Amino acid sequence: MENERKKPLTAATEVEVHFYDIDAVQIVWHGHYVKYLENAREAFGIKYGLEYTEIYRQGYIVPVADLHIRYLNTVTLGERLTIAIEYVPANAAKLVFNYRITGQTDGRQVAEATTVQLFMSKDGVFETSTPEFFRRWKKRWKQ
Amino acid sequence: MENERKKPLTAATEVEVHFYDIDAVQIVWHGHYVKYLENAREAFGIKYGLEYTEIYRQGYIVPVADLHIRYLNTVTLGERLTIAIEYVPANAAKLVFNYRITGQTDGRQVAEATTVQLFMSKDGVFETSTPEFFRRWKKRWKQ
Amino acid sequence: MENERKKPLTAATEVEVHFYDIDAVQIVWHGHYVKYLENAREAFGIKYGLEYTEIYRQGYIVPVADLHIRYLNTVTLGERLTIAIEYVPANAAKLVFNYRITGQTDGRQVAEATTVQLFMSKDGVFETSTPEFFRRWKKRWKQ
Amino acid sequence: MENERKKPLTAATEVEVHFYDIDAVQIVWHGHYVKYLENAREAFGIKYGLEYTEIYRQGYIVPVADLHIRYLNTVTLGERLTIAIEYVPANAAKLVFNYRITGQTDGRQVAEATTVQLFMSKDGVFETSTPEFFRRWKKRWKQ
Repeated sequence: MENERKKPLTAATEVEVHFYDIDAVQIVWHGHYVKYLENAREAFGIKYGLEYTEIYRQGYIVPVADLHIRYLNTVTLGERLTIAIEYVPANAAKLVFNYRITGQTDGRQVAEATTVQLFMSKDGVFETSTPEFFRRWKKRWKQ
Repeated sequence: MENERKKPLTAATEVEVHFYDIDAVQIVWHGHYVKYLENAREAFGIKYGLEYTEIYRQGYIVPVADLHIRYLNTVTLGERLTIAIEYVPANAAKLVFNYRITGQTDGRQVAEATTVQLFMSKDGVFETSTPEFFRRWKKRWKQ
Repeated sequence: MENERKKPLTAATEVEVHFYDIDAVQIVWHGHYVKYLENAREAFGIKYGLEYTEIYRQGYIVPVADLHIRYLNTVTLGERLTIAIEYVPANAAKLVFNYRITGQTDGRQVAEATTVQLFMSKDGVFETSTPEFFRRWKKRWKQ
Repeated sequence: MENERKKPLTAATEVEVHFYDIDAVQIVWHGHYVKYLENAREAFGIKYGLEYTEIYRQGYIVPVADLHIRYLNTVTLGERLTIAIEYVPANAAKLVFNYRITGQTDGRQVAEATTVQLFMSKDGVFETSTPEFFRRWKKRWKQ
């Protein structure tokens, strides 16, 4: 019930594959996808007022605690990718996102991913309860 | 029974945290851990005769199909990390590794990870049955 | 006289500064500019038919032999940069480019750079005379 | 005369070439050398008490203002490189270093480089006169 009323919060960004992203076997090195996910989080942050700079201004950093990427197809030089991101509502004091990366030319699925971020105060202590500013943010976006 | 007789295949490598690994909030950017895991796979490959170059010579590349990292503690400039890797026996045509990253100064757990790699022929086709060379490799190491 | 008749070959590309580009002192890490220059070379290649893939198809790679970057102003998170590239005509068997990086918001100069690339055959031998395909390319573009 | 009495300040570090350093034409991507130079500066800093953290504690950051790399030979997977660094005495308010990168197996010259760094206060203003702490550092090391 509760979940049904929530409108999904989504954003998307694009990335072009450059020569320096390609590895010795001519495909995008799998580690670079982590950057693509971060690009998507940045786009999400700008769209919904949750930029790193804003979070930092509120006294927190949000280190990634869990990263899971499932690679479905390889990618080569010159391709353009779309990275779609969706906020996953969670009751605990964390930020969860799902991602879907697709190739723009043929629309094939390139990868799926999930990240979990925790709230840490600037002096390095993990926050176990939801920070007040994030509570307000969730309320504002009905999450 | 079968599993009990298998002697674990493990390796380890070290990495030093450099200035360019540190992000704007003074910790190692989470994406760099993917490099650390690859360093460990390289050390494993050298120790057990499973280098990328050898795999390639056998006609295959082994793209990462699944990457899962659990970040347990943040890391800062100048730290030295140990990355331990363990081969996970699997019947399917894939390469599975578990990793454990620890800080050398205080021995604290920094991260745990798992990767799954598939065998792909040089012309880009995924191999669904175990390649002959890898069958021999498993036999040689009693895996 | 000769030089005066040559019409400058130029291209430009854009880049957005991401969180992972920022270092511990909150500015773009200087090493990332090398990627920006390569982005510009790629844009140039596409515009004038001199992509790496085309050069490779002709039997050559073009490793960078000289890289010189003059950093004029620091750059921070979220900025958008324009990287302008200009082909520098040379009689020798090399590829020379000049670059100018500017901030899009305020138009300030961020960096200037020059790269020199040599022609190397696929078996790793440097080419001391201009490759035939590049001679044709220069003629086509009146360089 | 003055210069002759100065004992050169040098340091060195090592780096191993990993899979993720190799580009699509099987050589170390030229941009990665910037990291190798920084590794050497870090080794120098530790040896002579000029770490970034120490400089920062004194109120300064030292952004790179000029980077010049001359690439002499390509490098491939698995090689080990030595990066030697030498402090270049300068009267102006800047930090100048020369570098020499060599392959450990065959001792061949891989690259030479020079960097120039300026002193910038934490609020982003370039320092035109030599900071007091650096004046003391130069005196201590007779530079």
